Amino acid sequence: MRYSKLFIPTMREIPSGINAISHILMLKAGYVRQLAAGLFIFLPLGWRVLNKINTILKEEMEKIGAQEISMPILHPAEIWQQTGRWYSIKEEMFRLKDRTGRDMCLGMTHEEIMAWIASKEIKSYRQLPQIWYQIQTKLRDEARPRGGVLRTREFIMKDSYSFDIDWEGLDRNYKLHAEAYHRIFTRCGLKYFQVESDPGIMGDMESHEFMAPTPAGEDDIVLCDHCGYAANIEIAKSQLSTLSHLNMEYKEVHTPQKKSVKEVAEFLGLDERYFIKTLLVISEKNEPVIVMLRGDQELNEKKLSRIIGEFSFATPEQALEILGVEPGFIGPTGHKIKKIADISIQKGLAYVSGANKKDYHLQGIVPGEHFDAQWMDIRKVKDKDNCPKCGSSLRIEKAIEVGNIFKLGTKYSEPLNAYFLDKDGKEKPIIMGSYGIGPARVAAAAIEQNHDADGIIWPKSIAPFDIEIIPLNMNSGTIQIAEELYEKITEIYNSFADRHMEVLIDDRDERPGVKFKDADLIGIPIQVIVGEKGLKENKIEIKKRRTKETKKVPVNKAVVEIVNTYYETY
Amino acid sequence: MRYSKLFIPTMREIPSGINAISHILMLKAGYVRQLAAGLFIFLPLGWRVLNKINTILKEEMEKIGAQEISMPILHPAEIWQQTGRWYSIKEEMFRLKDRTGRDMCLGMTHEEIMAWIASKEIKSYRQLPQIWYQIQTKLRDEARPRGGVLRTREFIMKDSYSFDIDWEGLDRNYKLHAEAYHRIFTRCGLKYFQVESDPGIMGDMESHEFMAPTPAGEDDIVLCDHCGYAANIEIAKSQLSTLSHLNMEYKEVHTPQKKSVKEVAEFLGLDERYFIKTLLVISEKNEPVIVMLRGDQELNEKKLSRIIGEFSFATPEQALEILGVEPGFIGPTGHKIKKIADISIQKGLAYVSGANKKDYHLQGIVPGEHFDAQWMDIRKVKDKDNCPKCGSSLRIEKAIEVGNIFKLGTKYSEPLNAYFLDKDGKEKPIIMGSYGIGPARVAAAAIEQNHDADGIIWPKSIAPFDIEIIPLNMNSGTIQIAEELYEKITEIYNSFADRHMEVLIDDRDERPGVKFKDADLIGIPIQVIVGEKGLKENKIEIKKRRTKETKKVPVNKAVVEIVNTYYETY
Repeated sequence: MRYSKLFIPTMREIPSGINAISHILMLKAGYVRQLAAGLFIFLPLGWRVLNKINTILKEEMEKIGAQEISMPILHPAEIWQQTGRWYSIKEEMFRLKDRTGRDMCLGMTHEEIMAWIASKEIKSYRQLPQIWYQIQTKLRDEARPRGGVLRTREFIMKDSYSFDIDWEGLDRNYKLHAEAYHRIFTRCGLKYFQVESDPGIMGDMESHEFMAPTPAGEDDIVLCDHCGYAANIEIAKSQLSTLSHLNMEYKEVHTPQKKSVKEVAEFLGLDERYFIKTLLVISEKNEPVIVMLRGDQELNEKKLSRIIGEFSFATPEQALEILGVEPGFIGPTGHKIKKIADISIQKGLAYVSGANKKDYHLQGIVPGEHFDAQWMDIRKVKDKDNCPKCGSSLRIEKAIEVGNIFKLGTKYSEPLNAYFLDKDGKEKPIIMGSYGIGPARVAAAAIEQNHDADGIIWPKSIAPFDIEIIPLNMNSGTIQIAEELYEKITEIYNSFADRHMEVLIDDRDERPGVKFKDADLIGIPIQVIVGEKGLKENKIEIKKRRTKETKKVPVNKAVVEIVNTYYETY
Repeated sequence: MRYSKLFIPTMREIPSGINAISHILMLKAGYVRQLAAGLFIFLPLGWRVLNKINTILKEEMEKIGAQEISMPILHPAEIWQQTGRWYSIKEEMFRLKDRTGRDMCLGMTHEEIMAWIASKEIKSYRQLPQIWYQIQTKLRDEARPRGGVLRTREFIMKDSYSFDIDWEGLDRNYKLHAEAYHRIFTRCGLKYFQVESDPGIMGDMESHEFMAPTPAGEDDIVLCDHCGYAANIEIAKSQLSTLSHLNMEYKEVHTPQKKSVKEVAEFLGLDERYFIKTLLVISEKNEPVIVMLRGDQELNEKKLSRIIGEFSFATPEQALEILGVEPGFIGPTGHKIKKIADISIQKGLAYVSGANKKDYHLQGIVPGEHFDAQWMDIRKVKDKDNCPKCGSSLRIEKAIEVGNIFKLGTKYSEPLNAYFLDKDGKEKPIIMGSYGIGPARVAAAAIEQNHDADGIIWPKSIAPFDIEIIPLNMNSGTIQIAEELYEKITEIYNSFADRHMEVLIDDRDERPGVKFKDADLIGIPIQVIVGEKGLKENKIEIKKRRTKETKKVPVNKAVVEIVNTYYETY
């Protein structure tokens, strides 16, 4: 294709407040533009990349027997009411009324509609298993769209759904998807981890995320390099080394103005690990709950909310009213309200915590003796904690979620009456799974992981073009050689080859500097430079975008050399 | 692909109230299912057909230099407010508010957003011309969704937009699109006409529709088989033979209870063509307008509304109040309000019309002498009217609109500030065009035009598969030959061929009757029947779905014969 006929509006200056590298480079290199908060237009180069990714998605979905279908974006409310998500999902769902006043919503995901169609069409075990997928638009009214195409309000998603007669079938389809996802992300050139995850609004069973590590990521993932343990920090576990018992008299100590664990620990000259951090939270049902953590640990809010639902931290006024003491001096003893303690607080050891009295702490508190609680894992895993599986040191990385897989079981099939008759004529609910990949996130993650100061360095498989030919001037000799190479590769080479080469020729009447800058910015893997100087020696130059290695090759061997260089590049 | 692994839920019984053949057959053959009014799910076979059509669309768009992009479905209201369509389009637009209370709408079409992005990115004549297109979802809250996928509330559209520096550029891009559309509909196997059309909500300049004739069509098109004149009835013109003058005294005649032209004409023994039908309408600005037509003609409401805007017919009460006479006796003389007369009413001739007095008509009324009016073309063309170009007899056909092309000019670029600097540094508005095709309507029109009592007969180019292999039983001999043919065509033949054959094998353990019935219903062009009886003579049978011709060929020549039969089929 000809650069002069392609709409590639590169930008030199990026509006302020844009931070993610992928966002900056996609704007700069003319891949996308923003229409409004969280709404993006994909321009020709951007759309070519998405199509490359979508083709890989389709090929890998076909390999596991998934069938492509297409579902509407607009859904009647009734179906979402049947599973309860019409009510449990809040402002994230775009809702509207049609001209007759009927409640509708825009599809955030398609579990409901898939289970609905299965309920209409699947009658017998003989029709199962099925995998249906689509590459289709989803809409979610995100509170904070960010990072360009990383978190948007409208996005394309490859979503697939499996339907099975039993749990073994679901296990098989879940595994097939996990394997397909490995192939997909590998083919897209991503570094990624498969991590255990919180299914969130999808259900409460096994689920995994595919995470591409990069500093721009919104998620923290916990990794063990020794045994391979990998989990989203929202559900990650760790081991802590056990403490030895300290002999402390059970008594109040005066700690004027000392509120935080750090302040009291310094004041008393005691390690933070011998403290119990006592917090008061208010659940969404308006129930006060005392939450306890070892002094050196932080609360993992997601873990707590899986136990008590959404909650907020009590204000000083609420704490005074409910417990008669202000935060900073709350302790685990005495209160008659629900208590949850992290499992790292060991029974039988002596700890310090608030004395439930302003400016006083209580020492020698022995969990299990001076107070009892529900003992749960509610702490946030920290860097260098020990792996829950092998005990090695854990590390935490930021990552972008590029895919996820969920076991749904009967969560959607039961409320939507998706039942089938088994071999013995017995009615049973279909066992479902759902599986998603966001192609735009894959593209953004690829840029986050593959760029330099000059621009994007596309992994070969998802680059908008494979080769860019750059004639350095408009002299007829230069142009002629460049055009011949263009023609030979696109027409002659491609008519024989298995793998078609997609070639861009920069036929603009621009200075060499502009062409080089734009070529590095848009990031096509192989650049072929045709200049007067080289042609005097009958040579052209091949440059690898990633390594910037160049080599001069004779014009009459150029096509073979270009194609070979393409193949040896990653 | 294997039938047993494909989700093809054929139906024997269709719910009542479903009339369009394409709707019935798409449901019966398991191509689509309805989620709610005007919302359709495309199942695997239906989606394969749409993908075939979309591939043709892409190829033909690329040929005219159109660049594929992708725009959001969700739009901020402000951009639609700038062109006024936020206000002029009524309930057909889905509107909603986002979580911040901002007004949004769902894209019915993308002229606004395209002009908006052009206003941001096109600065100079050197960036023009451009053609941008997308194959993307549109949403329109139709009052009466009907005909299955023919008129839906959510549908995929190929919409392209051209951007030019001048009107000559627009003419070129308009012509390029018209030519591409001819190639597209021809390739899709449709019978169609390109007709002049009313641009409707798009603008008020030249536009054409591509119309596939079929009784299920919602539109009437007017055709001249002699000179090729073709227009949507909404704007079609015709010639009427001129009348000779009748000598009639100018006087009132008593016509008790005779209201319609037909009644009065019979009562007076006079040809209907010598009557003036006088109607009272009320415009949307609440202005009364008298509308006159020759007695044998009908009002074309679309034509009138292009002159006076939306209007309603006056009720008897309104007529009495405004004109002092009830409908049926209204005449053209005397009233001081706006009058519009169809150009078929000749000045100087004598006519009969209402006398503006109950039970009386007035004869000898001479237009131009006894009354004056705005003379406009407001009548509906009728079958056998004369062609406005060559005078031959016109005919009217029902048709499905499968595509349209519009010259937009500056209708969108001006309000959205899409200006560029021309060669002389002068600021000018971009000249735009827009061009649409509905792939689902193409599929439905193809079925309407290509089916028989047994099911669909797909045009080869858009069939979900090219060849269906039907082993008549599960005996190992039969299965082995069927599987060998399947493998030879999909793997061996395809690895050499330019045009890959897509093969479906009906590997279900079903009776031959079921397999034949389903094969005819889903409509794949070539059926290959492998049965015990034939194999005894070492033969298989090839059947053309369209003509039902069969031929027996030796197993060892089967692949070549199958492929040849495919190529000779249309």
